[in-house]
Amino acid sequence: MINFVYYTPTKMVFGKDTQYEVGKLVKETGAKSVLVHYGSERVVRTGLISTVTKALDEEGIKYVVLGGVVPNPHLSKVREGIELGKANNVDLILAVGGGSVIDSSKAIAYGLGEPDKDVWELYRHERKAKKCLPVATILTIAAAGSEMSNSSVITNEVTGEKRAYDDDIARPVFSILNPEFTVTLPDYQTMSGCTDMMMHTMERYFSTAGNMEITDAIAEALMRQVMKTAKILHKDPTNYEARADAMWAGSLAHNGLTGCGTNSDWATHLLEHELGGMFDVTHGAGLAALWPSWARYVHDNDMDRFVKFALNVMEVEKQPTDEETVEAGIRALEDFYHEIGMPINMKELGIEPTDEQIDKLAESCAKAAGGPLGCAKPLLKEDMVKIYKMAR
Amino acid sequence: MINFVYYTPTKMVFGKDTQYEVGKLVKETGAKSVLVHYGSERVVRTGLISTVTKALDEEGIKYVVLGGVVPNPHLSKVREGIELGKANNVDLILAVGGGSVIDSSKAIAYGLGEPDKDVWELYRHERKAKKCLPVATILTIAAAGSEMSNSSVITNEVTGEKRAYDDDIARPVFSILNPEFTVTLPDYQTMSGCTDMMMHTMERYFSTAGNMEITDAIAEALMRQVMKTAKILHKDPTNYEARADAMWAGSLAHNGLTGCGTNSDWATHLLEHELGGMFDVTHGAGLAALWPSWARYVHDNDMDRFVKFALNVMEVEKQPTDEETVEAGIRALEDFYHEIGMPINMKELGIEPTDEQIDKLAESCAKAAGGPLGCAKPLLKEDMVKIYKMAR
Repeated sequence: MINFVYYTPTKMVFGKDTQYEVGKLVKETGAKSVLVHYGSERVVRTGLISTVTKALDEEGIKYVVLGGVVPNPHLSKVREGIELGKANNVDLILAVGGGSVIDSSKAIAYGLGEPDKDVWELYRHERKAKKCLPVATILTIAAAGSEMSNSSVITNEVTGEKRAYDDDIARPVFSILNPEFTVTLPDYQTMSGCTDMMMHTMERYFSTAGNMEITDAIAEALMRQVMKTAKILHKDPTNYEARADAMWAGSLAHNGLTGCGTNSDWATHLLEHELGGMFDVTHGAGLAALWPSWARYVHDNDMDRFVKFALNVMEVEKQPTDEETVEAGIRALEDFYHEIGMPINMKELGIEPTDEQIDKLAESCAKAAGGPLGCAKPLLKEDMVKIYKMAR
Repeated sequence: MINFVYYTPTKMVFGKDTQYEVGKLVKETGAKSVLVHYGSERVVRTGLISTVTKALDEEGIKYVVLGGVVPNPHLSKVREGIELGKANNVDLILAVGGGSVIDSSKAIAYGLGEPDKDVWELYRHERKAKKCLPVATILTIAAAGSEMSNSSVITNEVTGEKRAYDDDIARPVFSILNPEFTVTLPDYQTMSGCTDMMMHTMERYFSTAGNMEITDAIAEALMRQVMKTAKILHKDPTNYEARADAMWAGSLAHNGLTGCGTNSDWATHLLEHELGGMFDVTHGAGLAALWPSWARYVHDNDMDRFVKFALNVMEVEKQPTDEETVEAGIRALEDFYHEIGMPINMKELGIEPTDEQIDKLAESCAKAAGGPLGCAKPLLKEDMVKIYKMAR
């Protein structure tokens, strides 16, 4: 194991009707002027936005509302939010939505924290943030874990770059999680969300730092449970208990808990970010389409972990050779993805990039990585090309 | 499952040599005058206290040092700390030690937060705290989880009352956890610590609120791992990886994670607090001595949970009847406690209370509970008498 810092200051307020606590929770932060930020009009239609504005009114807190965030959220919308925030002296960003809305809200909060600087510099890793306004969230999609994480991923829709910036100062001050908000989500989005949770844990699990037994035990339990929960929700989407399990698992999968004491890989995520930038695919589904090829390409470099994953997470029988055990584990995950309607390659994802496009994806990914990518097997551009081609 | 709030703002700085970060971490809090609080002279002899004071000196932070906290920490020492803090305009309490030192530090922080009020009123549940100075910790014993929890347990050594007060405002601002500090602990203390972690999770596991599958999965994984780790450390106390697993498990077992979505029992803890108040036993060992009797007394009221515990945590074979499965699970835990040198009744703990003493223990416990105790089977004074006698 390696030394680590675990820091999750977000107050998580979880359960039915918790949205009605938003006014009190904002007031506790001391905020006077809130930017209420959302994506889909679904949260307007369901009355959630008016619940929020009514609660803020009741506490005498000013607000301005900005909607229209899209999946793979755009830098232009972030800039719009920053300008709106400046004009209204906003001192807290309240994200109402899923990972895209929260990531976009974090970007706005960075922009307003240092209003004289260009926020995109952070995502290009040209500087570190010194200030950030407080962000709070009302989560409506269980997937990205942004409601408790330090991560934010933004797409520059002009250049097609999808880039991540992680910083603890952007961890939300509070997050409201009412699983009922997720009950009406389309199945594809729910299953993509569950895949994202699996992948957030797997990126940390495939480590070469020796790991910690207690972290492994928790991560394995979480992954087994997410697969159970996904299968339940695939058949019974209105099951509140399963919705609650999925929602809480999403936060725990990406708050750092499942990576304590390990180094992390993240290659599949960065490979997927390029797909998201070029083709606007759903993040979780994009991860499912790439992971099996990544796993087959890198596993020989991190054999013990892949065997452990096969036995303890996918619960396959031990095979005559480690190689066969690993392959059985990868196949079991593919079977699971198929069972819940997820793709296991890019064709099933609905995209068929040309050789030229793959070269561009790999070129951009290698540039974003800024060096060999991942720890299970550090990847150079030529490795990335091979993985994309295997996944085609 | 039931609604819950999960709030763990403590920055956990974990691993080798992390004690050298204490000056920087205190400085980040903005504190100017620190009360360095410790218990055993072991932390002086090992040089840890001088490492701390040197680091504070280097950052230009004033400090005053107070040692002498004992297990089942005394109210008189808390009052001494409060007076010393007042005299030195202290604005942060740095606990260097285990649960007793941290609990005592939280009590001092409450006392200094509201200097005109008697701190013992909190522990008698006569009022709620409105203010509390920041507490930080350098942990040297893996057990109580106080380094990340909202709990504090203090013994009024004049009346013999051992009382708990829980409040989120006392959660530490940061905690430094270097597993190397625990390597030289006596085996009995290490095993009592592991028992305390088990019990912190079990108190939450035996819930009647329907529970959450994801919380159960994590709690079960944690308990299985703590048992594995305890067995390793019982034979190989200098194993760093196992020391690290135990230390981190201690924090996770009591920060709230293993109780998300459940109500909690806590009867065994309150029954043990009375033993601690009257006989000054080691907390974890006291819990081990009481739990089997509590379990046999209450299990018929919460059968499904006890069966699940037997199968998923103790991993016993399913027996012809639920009753037999439950009993097999309890016996397996008793076997584990024996294997690591822990008692399973009060005689093995080294105390043999008379009927009169048991009546006094139950009387005091019922008074502290202020109503039926626990959720698995709510206990009245007469139930407590029976459990104490079963455990004798």
